[in-house]
Amino acid sequence: MKFGIVIFPSKKIQDYANSLRRRYDPHYALIPPHLTLKSPFEATEEEIKNVVQKIDAIARNFNPVSLNITKIGSFKPVNNVIYLKVESPEDLVSLHSELNSAFEGDQEYNFVPHITIGQNMSDDEHSDVYGSLRMTKVQFEDTADRLHLLYQLDNGSWTVYETFRLRKE
Amino acid sequence: MKFGIVIFPSKKIQDYANSLRRRYDPHYALIPPHLTLKSPFEATEEEIKNVVQKIDAIARNFNPVSLNITKIGSFKPVNNVIYLKVESPEDLVSLHSELNSAFEGDQEYNFVPHITIGQNMSDDEHSDVYGSLRMTKVQFEDTADRLHLLYQLDNGSWTVYETFRLRKE
Repeated sequence: MKFGIVIFPSKKIQDYANSLRRRYDPHYALIPPHLTLKSPFEATEEEIKNVVQKIDAIARNFNPVSLNITKIGSFKPVNNVIYLKVESPEDLVSLHSELNSAFEGDQEYNFVPHITIGQNMSDDEHSDVYGSLRMTKVQFEDTADRLHLLYQLDNGSWTVYETFRLRKE
Repeated sequence: MKFGIVIFPSKKIQDYANSLRRRYDPHYALIPPHLTLKSPFEATEEEIKNVVQKIDAIARNFNPVSLNITKIGSFKPVNNVIYLKVESPEDLVSLHSELNSAFEGDQEYNFVPHITIGQNMSDDEHSDVYGSLRMTKVQFEDTADRLHLLYQLDNGSWTVYETFRLRKE
């Protein structure tokens, strides 16, 4: 099974993101708007129990993290993804880094905290859409107090397996 | 905000349910296949903290519950919903009843544990579809060891707020 770890931002941010995703993101119906902390990885149902313990141990060591969204960005020229840029306080970066170092394997990209609102666009489409969105004023402040471990179904959609509260003791 | 409480069955059952839902259930893209334990209710973000405590207290008093799926049923003539019938061991019924008595308000129907695979059909469509599905052999055994509290976004889709493990001590 394929698993991933995400933060779901507040309902307000999700609703805003969906108002754009419905037009620009073919994954719109597969998963709610999210900030990816650990990209998809394979694990068996047996292995995941161990993963759950690792995530739980990490979540116990973190306070809730603040998420500030101030602009719309794009990963062009790496790819044509358009996203809500999430200002990354140090604790979000270290949360990401602890979660990823708990697993073997590669780290494809530097961590740029973001919530995808558009993807799989042609270059022309990307230029049009990003051209019209990049100057949009966005301003959201949120606090994430939990993570979610998800798994993917055969149709590509994601179901939540477990929630972990950030609860430094 | 609108909240609900569900069980997500195993991936195998969800994949099977989705193979039917994609054709027969307009909610296919809004929520993964699920067994509803508490139908949608309104709560503020402040009120939900109290709800979370109530659910947590209940989950602490239950062992994981077994789910046996043996046939496809229909709620006709009450409505045109077609579903996977979940054999209801006593503990599933009492879990439902404790969760619902923790809230004020009405209980619309008797509890018939099920996973919806088709809805919003005309009478004719229902007859056709149910006629062809009712003799289908289905046989799944599963154990649910967790509940999920969800909230609904403006586009009608559902995001998980929190997971509760059934963990009688």
